[in-house]
Amino acid sequence: PCTDYDMAYFKAYSHIGVHEEMLKDHVRTNTYRNAIMHHQDLISGKVVLDVGCGTGVLSIFCAFAGATRVYAVDASDIALQAMEIVRENELSDKVIVLHDRIEDVEIEEKVDVIISEWMGYMLLSESMLGSVIFARDKWLKPGGLILPSHASLYLAPITNSQRYQDSVYFWRDVYGIKMSSMMPLAKQCAFMEPSVETISGENVLTWPTVVAQVDCYTIQALQLETFTATFKYTSMLQAPLHGFAFWFDVEFNGPVRQKSKKQASQSMDGNPQNASPSNKKKKPDVSIVLSTAPEDAPTHWQQTLLYLFEPIELKKDQNIEGSITISQSQQHARFLNICLKYFTGDQWYVKESVMR
Amino acid sequence: PCTDYDMAYFKAYSHIGVHEEMLKDHVRTNTYRNAIMHHQDLISGKVVLDVGCGTGVLSIFCAFAGATRVYAVDASDIALQAMEIVRENELSDKVIVLHDRIEDVEIEEKVDVIISEWMGYMLLSESMLGSVIFARDKWLKPGGLILPSHASLYLAPITNSQRYQDSVYFWRDVYGIKMSSMMPLAKQCAFMEPSVETISGENVLTWPTVVAQVDCYTIQALQLETFTATFKYTSMLQAPLHGFAFWFDVEFNGPVRQKSKKQASQSMDGNPQNASPSNKKKKPDVSIVLSTAPEDAPTHWQQTLLYLFEPIELKKDQNIEGSITISQSQQHARFLNICLKYFTGDQWYVKESVMR
Repeated sequence: PCTDYDMAYFKAYSHIGVHEEMLKDHVRTNTYRNAIMHHQDLISGKVVLDVGCGTGVLSIFCAFAGATRVYAVDASDIALQAMEIVRENELSDKVIVLHDRIEDVEIEEKVDVIISEWMGYMLLSESMLGSVIFARDKWLKPGGLILPSHASLYLAPITNSQRYQDSVYFWRDVYGIKMSSMMPLAKQCAFMEPSVETISGENVLTWPTVVAQVDCYTIQALQLETFTATFKYTSMLQAPLHGFAFWFDVEFNGPVRQKSKKQASQSMDGNPQNASPSNKKKKPDVSIVLSTAPEDAPTHWQQTLLYLFEPIELKKDQNIEGSITISQSQQHARFLNICLKYFTGDQWYVKESVMR
Repeated sequence: PCTDYDMAYFKAYSHIGVHEEMLKDHVRTNTYRNAIMHHQDLISGKVVLDVGCGTGVLSIFCAFAGATRVYAVDASDIALQAMEIVRENELSDKVIVLHDRIEDVEIEEKVDVIISEWMGYMLLSESMLGSVIFARDKWLKPGGLILPSHASLYLAPITNSQRYQDSVYFWRDVYGIKMSSMMPLAKQCAFMEPSVETISGENVLTWPTVVAQVDCYTIQALQLETFTATFKYTSMLQAPLHGFAFWFDVEFNGPVRQKSKKQASQSMDGNPQNASPSNKKKKPDVSIVLSTAPEDAPTHWQQTLLYLFEPIELKKDQNIEGSITISQSQQHARFLNICLKYFTGDQWYVKESVMR
C-alpha cells in the first residue's frame, strides 16, 4: 500500500537521483572545485552566495577555500538535506542554508562572490541563469567575482548513420517482416523534438559556430528572451547530414575579464562566428573551462541534437548557411522554442522544435 | 508550440519505444519464433488467436508457419500499426487485426492455438495472464495449443556490494565532503520498492526456489489473486545478504503436457521447491524455454530485486527460511503487493513492497 509517507519519498527520490547524477559527473564537479581553488585569493576571507545550492557541495568547497560566510540558497527541499550536510561537516557557522527562492531570500549583507551551477541542457534549457542575473544585480558588490563567468553555446552540423539505423531503418526488416509502415511514426517520435544524447567528435562535420556568448558579469535577462545567430558551415566530409548538435562550455574567469564585454555583447547580434582550436587558444586569460563538447570527456549534459526527418547527402566542401533562433516559450518559461533555417544544395529547409 | 497533433505523437512514442524494445530483445523474439516453428505441425492449417498482438510480429510468424487464419487482438492503438504491417506483408487475407480488448472481441470461430507474450516484470507484474485465461476459456478448442504453455517464477537470495556502494555508501565521502546524512533517504529511495535491474549469476547465493508455477492450460484467474510460497536456502558463500531476486522462465510445450497439471497445481500450495540444473534437465519434454535467469543471456525483463535496508552478514552454509506472498493490489489490479518474511541468524525480518 502506497501511503503519503511513501509518496513523499518518491518525490525525494527524483531529487536524490538528480543530485547523485550531478555529483557523479566528475568533469562537472571537479572543474567547479578546481575553479574555486584557482580563485582562492578572491574567495578566502570573503562572503559567497551559492544560487541553487542543491546538496551544498559548491558552498562547502568555498568554505574549504576559506570563505568567511557562504549563503547557500535553494527553493527545493534538497535544501533541508544541505542543512544536514553542512552540520555534518561542522560548517554551520560558515555556511548558511536558506530554503527559499533567490528572488525572495533576505541576506544581511552584499556578497563578494556568486557561484552557481545553473546550466541546463543546451546551456539555457530549464535554466536558472535568470536567477543568477537577479542575484548579481541585487546582492553582488561592484567588482565581485561570478563563477562561472562566461558561457558559450555552439552549433555544428553532424552525421550519425547509426542513430538512423537504430531508430528508422530498423523497421525495414524485423525478423524477416516488413515494418516500413512504422517508419513515418518512428521518425516523428525519434526526431521531432531535440534529443539529449552523446555523440563523438567523429559525428561532427565541421567547426561549430558560436550561437550565444554569455558574459555573466553583464548579461541582462532581456537578452535571453529571444536571440538569433547566423551560420555558414563548409562540410569537411562527404557524408549524410543528419542534423545539428548543440553543446556549450563555461569559463571561470575573474572580474578583470569584464573588459571583454564588448566582444561578448556582439555575439548576441547574429554575426556568424566560427570557433576553431586556434581561436580557443587565442583567449589569453582562459584558465578553467568546463566543456560539454563531443570531443571532450562526456558529462551528464551530453549534447542536444536536432535531427532532420530526411538526411541530406553532402559533398565535401558543400556549404550550409542559415540561422538559428532560440526563444523562451510564452507558455512555459522554462521551455525553449528553437527555429532552425538552413540552405544547402539550392534548397531552404526549416526545422522548428521545442526543448522541454 | 505543442499542438494536439504533437501530443498524439508523444502518446504514440511510448508505444513505439516499448515495441521497439521488445522487438530488439532478440532472446525474447527469437525464442517465440523458434517455438512457433517447433510446433509448426500444430499451427499449419489451423486458426490462431494472438492475445495482445502489439506490432503483430507473433501473428505474422504464425502466418509464415502456415496458419490459415490469425486473429491478432490488441486494445492499444498499436493495433492500427499492426494492420498496416499486415497489409505491407500481404497477409491481410490471413491475419485479421482486431483493435479491441480480448474481453470484448467477437470472433466467428473457435481457435486451435492461443499465442501471447503476456509476461511482465517478475512474470506477473502488469500482467495480461488474466486475458489469456479469459481467451482460453472462451475461444480455445479442447486440446488446443497454448504458447507459452508453462511459466515458473523463481526467488533466490543475492549479494550485490557494488549496488550498495553506488547507492548508499557513495554518500559517506563525496569529494572530501561528509554526506552520510543522505544515507537514510538514499536507502529508502533505492531500496523501498522492487528494482528492475540486471544482475549476474555471481550475485546469486544459492539455488533458487520456485515461487509459482503456472500451467497455462489449467490455471484459474483466482489462483493469481494471492499466493504464498515458503523457502529454505543454504548460502553457498560467506557474503553479505543484500536482498532477493525474482526471475522467471516460460516453456513452450504442446497440449500433451497437460498431464503435468497435478504437479503444477501443487506449486501454488506453498511447498518449498528448490530448483537446480539437474532438476531442470529431468523434465523430459521441455523443448523451448525462454529464461530470464541471471546466468542466462540478458533480456528486457532483467531481474526484479528486493533489497534489504541493512545487509546481513551470512556465513557459508547459513540457512535463510521464510515465505513470500504475492497478491494483486486491491487499489490497482496491475500492481502487486509483495510480502517477504525471512528468518536467519536467530532473527525474523519482514519486507513489504509494491511492484508498480
